[in-house]
Amino acid sequence: MRYAHRMERIKDRELLSLMELSEKKDMISFSGGFPSADSYPIEEIKESFYRILEEDPSGALSYSSTRGYGPLRQQIAQRMETHFGTSFSQEQVLITSGSQQALDMAGLLLIDKGDVVLFETPSYLGALNALKAYEAELVAVPTDEDGIVIASLQEAMETYGERVKMIYVIPDFQNPTGRCWSEKRRRDFMELVGHYDVAVLEDAAYSELSFGEEKEIPLIRYDEKQQVIYCGTFSKIFCPGLRIGWVCAGSAVMEELLLLKSSVDLSAPSITQRQTAYYLEHFDLDAHIRENILLYKKRRDAMIAAMKDKFPEGVSFNQPKGGLFLWVTLPESKDSRELLRRAYEAGISFVPGGSFYPGAVKNNEFRLNFSNVSEEKIRTGIEILGRIINDYIAE
Amino acid sequence: MRYAHRMERIKDRELLSLMELSEKKDMISFSGGFPSADSYPIEEIKESFYRILEEDPSGALSYSSTRGYGPLRQQIAQRMETHFGTSFSQEQVLITSGSQQALDMAGLLLIDKGDVVLFETPSYLGALNALKAYEAELVAVPTDEDGIVIASLQEAMETYGERVKMIYVIPDFQNPTGRCWSEKRRRDFMELVGHYDVAVLEDAAYSELSFGEEKEIPLIRYDEKQQVIYCGTFSKIFCPGLRIGWVCAGSAVMEELLLLKSSVDLSAPSITQRQTAYYLEHFDLDAHIRENILLYKKRRDAMIAAMKDKFPEGVSFNQPKGGLFLWVTLPESKDSRELLRRAYEAGISFVPGGSFYPGAVKNNEFRLNFSNVSEEKIRTGIEILGRIINDYIAE
Repeated sequence: MRYAHRMERIKDRELLSLMELSEKKDMISFSGGFPSADSYPIEEIKESFYRILEEDPSGALSYSSTRGYGPLRQQIAQRMETHFGTSFSQEQVLITSGSQQALDMAGLLLIDKGDVVLFETPSYLGALNALKAYEAELVAVPTDEDGIVIASLQEAMETYGERVKMIYVIPDFQNPTGRCWSEKRRRDFMELVGHYDVAVLEDAAYSELSFGEEKEIPLIRYDEKQQVIYCGTFSKIFCPGLRIGWVCAGSAVMEELLLLKSSVDLSAPSITQRQTAYYLEHFDLDAHIRENILLYKKRRDAMIAAMKDKFPEGVSFNQPKGGLFLWVTLPESKDSRELLRRAYEAGISFVPGGSFYPGAVKNNEFRLNFSNVSEEKIRTGIEILGRIINDYIAE
Repeated sequence: MRYAHRMERIKDRELLSLMELSEKKDMISFSGGFPSADSYPIEEIKESFYRILEEDPSGALSYSSTRGYGPLRQQIAQRMETHFGTSFSQEQVLITSGSQQALDMAGLLLIDKGDVVLFETPSYLGALNALKAYEAELVAVPTDEDGIVIASLQEAMETYGERVKMIYVIPDFQNPTGRCWSEKRRRDFMELVGHYDVAVLEDAAYSELSFGEEKEIPLIRYDEKQQVIYCGTFSKIFCPGLRIGWVCAGSAVMEELLLLKSSVDLSAPSITQRQTAYYLEHFDLDAHIRENILLYKKRRDAMIAAMKDKFPEGVSFNQPKGGLFLWVTLPESKDSRELLRRAYEAGISFVPGGSFYPGAVKNNEFRLNFSNVSEEKIRTGIEILGRIINDYIAE
């Protein structure tokens, strides 16, 4: 069979094999990007399914509209307003199959072969792979602790000119590093971007997982020219297995996305949309998220304490203020893929940093997930990992 | 915002507006492509959701593997073997978001800009739109009562040569006409296709809805060169709101599709996959389908009887042996879109035939759905429609 040329570009099976790994049992896995499964509000979810099937079984089992179930879109718009001060109508919300589908649809909407996509680095390779499928040329822009580096971004904009169609960013507690953009960086970014005819793909998967008092202001709040396509999801704050995400954007863009949703899979499942809407109406998602945040914060603290205790000199790591991940840096000569091979033998997994750079240009870093592992397992796992790193570095 | 060039090509909002229409109440709608909502096995579905959430809540709410839930894939492979004599392993089944996603993924897999896709005509525009998004050039091949016309197909293959990447077909009770390919036509088709390096996209959405004793033999049974990508779905035989479809193909193709699934939305929802697997294991889907078929057959008969009685001379229609639709032809000078405008006023809807020809080249036909309307409403609706057609033709 003769495949499309794009298939040459997306041969990277790294993410895929990670997803397949995730089904294996009895390991201490620091590799997932999942919320804690122990914390799913199972009774409430059961009740929601039961109720919606009682109240309107035919509605729950028939096709949804392409845009998605109206009451769910209304609640999403309302939640975004409450938490982030946006003012979208429900017509500006479209339900997707997780935020991954929104990322893919943004590629389909915007990218012609050879168009340039700028992205902060390191970044979520699942998004970059989706954009590669549309034959984008991916150009990395450096980041520092405050977010994407504005001078570097400007330089890239000047270098590639009109070829730049999109900038992909994760401003809040990003995957993989857990870093969060400062407010000033957000403003400077949107100010710069406003001078160009370029779309911003704002991946907000972790935006509600701030460990502090205040929520970060999303880029779309500063968006005066309808440049931002905002991708949200319930996967990290509720349950990933429901696959409910959404996209918000200006009305003109939404009409185009609606056409694409119809083309890619017609509509989201009615039943999971209605279940989520019922849950949002009758239970307290915010309380659930607050509980999760407390849990994740404790786990982050436990991980950092263990790393301070067990990791050798020359290994550094950050202390994220939210999200699910932290980021570890080995000495430059070391390769985290080799470390993973050894750790895997000892029953520990994590994600090598090269998986977050297209072409794996940098390999001495790795990502640790702390949200989905108990404090006890964190301590055990980090101790084992510390020994393995010690041996590896001593070689 | 500067969109990708493909957006120019998929401006056809016909299908989309039909999906949006479907939420309106109190009409007699012959326009849907849905199974009968009254026949959903609601109690069994409720029980399945309840049980899977009891037995393994964490599994049901966490991410599924990219390929899909193993036991569901196993059951699908088994059902295909029982009903259609295929012999796929569960590794050759990938779960999709309805069969629409499989059609989209086939485009992503195979189509470069300017590649030619041949398709039987009239056909399902949702598939053709999905392929258009990958900038395929669509070339119609005529059909007769026995299926795609082999001489015309051969002519098209010779005309377009290597540019032909894919042939899209719906051999069983196709959308929109309800026609079914003869066994000889299937053999001749696969024999011809075997001489070329071209993929066959077999849309089997209606394959289990045969009103006769025997199931039709799918093209993939004759597939000696792994050319066929087979798209199945539970939407027409169980519940469309669950959005569970699947794709089956040769192992090499499956590995590519797996990469794409990871890119387009990571994986299908765990909960709906597990619910469907539970249902298949503990209840009798085949009995449910048999009941539905009896119901649809009666409704088809009621519709045909009413049309014979109420439609004027010069209007012809077929008598499909399965599926959800039949196909009506007005005199050549008449336009079914104008008829729809008048019918809609009177509370009746259907789908104008132009919606099944790219570019709406032919407009004197229309599609009637008989599966989702009670016999009584069929009689009432056809009587009203008959009057409107009478008036329209008499003008």
